Amino acid sequence: MFIDHGGQWVSPGQTSLMNLARELGVSLFDTWHQGRTVDWHEGKRTTYEGLYPSYWTTADEDEAESVVEQLTKMADSFNLESPWLADGADEWDDETLDHWLERNVSSELARKLVSRGIVGVFGGGPGDLSLLAALFVLRSAQDLIRRFSPKGIDQRFVGGAQQLSIKMAKCLGNRVVLGAWVSQLNHGDDGVMAISDKLSVRAKRAIVTLPPTLAGRIRYQPALPAARDHLTESTPMGWVIKAHCVYRSRFWREARLSGAVTSDEGAVRTTADNSPPCGSPAILVGFIEGQAARDLAPKSIEERRAAVLADFVRYFGDQAAEPRAYYEHSWGDDEFSRGAYGGYWTQGLWTAYGPVLRDPIGTLHWAGTETSVEWNGKMEGALLSAERVAAEVLDALRS
Amino acid sequence: MFIDHGGQWVSPGQTSLMNLARELGVSLFDTWHQGRTVDWHEGKRTTYEGLYPSYWTTADEDEAESVVEQLTKMADSFNLESPWLADGADEWDDETLDHWLERNVSSELARKLVSRGIVGVFGGGPGDLSLLAALFVLRSAQDLIRRFSPKGIDQRFVGGAQQLSIKMAKCLGNRVVLGAWVSQLNHGDDGVMAISDKLSVRAKRAIVTLPPTLAGRIRYQPALPAARDHLTESTPMGWVIKAHCVYRSRFWREARLSGAVTSDEGAVRTTADNSPPCGSPAILVGFIEGQAARDLAPKSIEERRAAVLADFVRYFGDQAAEPRAYYEHSWGDDEFSRGAYGGYWTQGLWTAYGPVLRDPIGTLHWAGTETSVEWNGKMEGALLSAERVAAEVLDALRS
Repeated sequence: MFIDHGGQWVSPGQTSLMNLARELGVSLFDTWHQGRTVDWHEGKRTTYEGLYPSYWTTADEDEAESVVEQLTKMADSFNLESPWLADGADEWDDETLDHWLERNVSSELARKLVSRGIVGVFGGGPGDLSLLAALFVLRSAQDLIRRFSPKGIDQRFVGGAQQLSIKMAKCLGNRVVLGAWVSQLNHGDDGVMAISDKLSVRAKRAIVTLPPTLAGRIRYQPALPAARDHLTESTPMGWVIKAHCVYRSRFWREARLSGAVTSDEGAVRTTADNSPPCGSPAILVGFIEGQAARDLAPKSIEERRAAVLADFVRYFGDQAAEPRAYYEHSWGDDEFSRGAYGGYWTQGLWTAYGPVLRDPIGTLHWAGTETSVEWNGKMEGALLSAERVAAEVLDALRS
Repeated sequence: MFIDHGGQWVSPGQTSLMNLARELGVSLFDTWHQGRTVDWHEGKRTTYEGLYPSYWTTADEDEAESVVEQLTKMADSFNLESPWLADGADEWDDETLDHWLERNVSSELARKLVSRGIVGVFGGGPGDLSLLAALFVLRSAQDLIRRFSPKGIDQRFVGGAQQLSIKMAKCLGNRVVLGAWVSQLNHGDDGVMAISDKLSVRAKRAIVTLPPTLAGRIRYQPALPAARDHLTESTPMGWVIKAHCVYRSRFWREARLSGAVTSDEGAVRTTADNSPPCGSPAILVGFIEGQAARDLAPKSIEERRAAVLADFVRYFGDQAAEPRAYYEHSWGDDEFSRGAYGGYWTQGLWTAYGPVLRDPIGTLHWAGTETSVEWNGKMEGALLSAERVAAEVLDALRS
């Protein structure tokens, strides 16, 4: 059995991630997806296949498709490398996604689906993505686009996603130093010195891969220019608690359910069948996001478990009440992540500080999925940022 | 001569600040305020006395007064101790001040005056205060309320505001350790250990007085709960560069000008006569805020000086072109402030994380003007927070 507490899905088109898995000998398997989705809406449970629950009208569906088309067209109008140069960037960055949806979409169902579909990967924080940030995410993270135009089935790693890190670390041997908190980075033309509570390391260049808000917590000597610092003050992390329940059997499949939920109520509003490839043990994962995470994080694990199980029973019936095991990870409480699924762009941020997101500062370079043009917020985005920054550093060392 | 690079004004009603000044033997003097204000609007320079430039219509004035009244009434409807408990808190925290003004105020002049009057003290960052945050600031920081109902003249400290800190430090003697960057705070029931690059200090309690975003950069062991950490990820600092020009004489007074400017264009859009009590040397201060600060900060001091002087000449004539000296401070570039005039509350933040702003976490206590209920963002707010936290710690030590 393996549990993926972090990123777990590999989507069609994420070729760097697939190539890395192949190189490291980690196999992929199709996610469990066959069966009906359980929907909970205004106190009522139904099940559906396809994109829309049964209470959606054709008008709702048409509006959802039309707004995604409209937003995609707007997002296609600018270069993902530089959203701040979009025509209308200032206006789009000043408005929030939700306000734009309110102004332009009359169907509440369509509004919520689109908002959730775009913000999903970053959501959970207070505040709202700006329209510009949402357009960037729409095209970069691809969630909503893939929902309407699927190019295949998402996959997972046999044995769990963390194997990639573990196997890469093994290849690197003792060059990887774990448990060393870098509190300070001295930098200058002659190189860098990373100072941790365990050791100090001299190098020609340093690559900081933390999300921007955490990268801002390192002390840089000399101090960084205000623009870069302010960027790190306004790119907070989303917040999600991932909760896994392990069962003897996948009882939901007997009811022809996929294990997936869409819901407007409860601590858990999204779930998935997270069983391993052989299907045993049976595992359901629930995502506790945003306000629900804020409400439940300070409580005891027993209380969170009870909240998750109450929701699972509501969605899947009484058999969900007694899991053999419960595992959870609160990313907001994780000292060196402080959230999931990634750092998000608040109102006005792309236009104010976009250009400093990736620009190296002397011998300091920036990477991490938040810096990625494509697949931003995903594991694939992290790998793409690694390829970009490695080329950047090699270039700098050669010149 | 003295130059106040930081907070400088003492407003009627700021009794803690006045009492501290008296106790330390620092005198106050009335700010230079007599004379007409220079206004620059859509490329045209005029001068005016009172609240409104001459091109304001009675309708504009009526609307400005009516909207301030309306906002004050809304702000009076809740307790400043807990904005998140306001009736309509969620709705107000989801909307931004500027969107509310657009919906409710037809006069653009009135909208800008109100927005500027509320946001002024915190402004300059990307994004916008939520309506709830704006209502809090309106009543707490008092800028706009005092503009419409002045209770007297703002004062300044003879010799500069920093004397308060310097004199207090002198009283405390070698208990004040300067230049020690606290990178880590270990905390538990048995007390705290503050670890700096210079020394480590054991104590029963620690009071962190940094603005929230900087307080989040200390490493806490054990790590803080997610809610507190996330608060510090979403309370960015405003950004202002204060630029002082020193002249041989206060030539603007000969033209019956106060030295104050209101403007819709240029790097400097607000100024004041910052001369010492005797009036000599003659000093004008200009505030470079927000986007102007972002644009000018990466440039050379010569370029910033030229931009400031071009604006001063536009407002005050050719005599402003040749100051005897130019002094500036970019608060965004200041490593241990990272901005001015204070940390501000982004959309959704009060309702998501308000309760954790001041609540102690075990033996850790939080102070600083950003934690103050009254005069939030001002020096007075910092002192009030000191009184509050001192009582809090004494209570804890007694129990």
